[in-house]
Amino acid sequence: MIIEIAILSVKAGEGPAFERDFTEASRYISQSEGYVSHQLQRCLETKNRYILLVNWSSVEAHMVVFRNSKVFLEWKRLLHHYYDQPAIVEHYSKVYEGTGDRSNQ
Amino acid sequence: MIIEIAILSVKAGEGPAFERDFTEASRYISQSEGYVSHQLQRCLETKNRYILLVNWSSVEAHMVVFRNSKVFLEWKRLLHHYYDQPAIVEHYSKVYEGTGDRSNQ
Repeated sequence: MIIEIAILSVKAGEGPAFERDFTEASRYISQSEGYVSHQLQRCLETKNRYILLVNWSSVEAHMVVFRNSKVFLEWKRLLHHYYDQPAIVEHYSKVYEGTGDRSNQ
Repeated sequence: MIIEIAILSVKAGEGPAFERDFTEASRYISQSEGYVSHQLQRCLETKNRYILLVNWSSVEAHMVVFRNSKVFLEWKRLLHHYYDQPAIVEHYSKVYEGTGDRSNQ
């Protein structure tokens, strides 16, 4: 599994509408083969900045399967007009995960 | 709960040592009051880039409690010398989370 991390810049004043349409768009991305889960996070320090985190089975599931799918057209139609600059998209693989289990301390 | 997202740039060639020491440093951050969980992710496209994701009970748990704690001194001692530029740190609050449950489709 890999994670897509996309930094999104939304046009001033359009945050609430973007968030509303994101909920609808989520129905589409979650239908894509290889999709695992996703989150949308709103930045507390930088107005209109969001981060999208998507877990995919592989980079190809995102870049090939999803990007060439019919559901991606719906995703784009609903969301891309909110961005005032292209999303910065990268993929990451997990090195470490800790859950704060203190049972051994 | 909020999430800290930090973009880290590690000196060329020091990734494996950084990852090893990150495991040790994780013992310290997880002891801090208000810590919930964390992940380290390695970028697939940009060499030596990592993203640290930390769930905290609040921004204060990170910026006040952790940053002024003894365990932060250990965290810094183990990790900060690996960075070739200051970490870019921001906090986010969750807008949406989807897990791909298709039971309604």
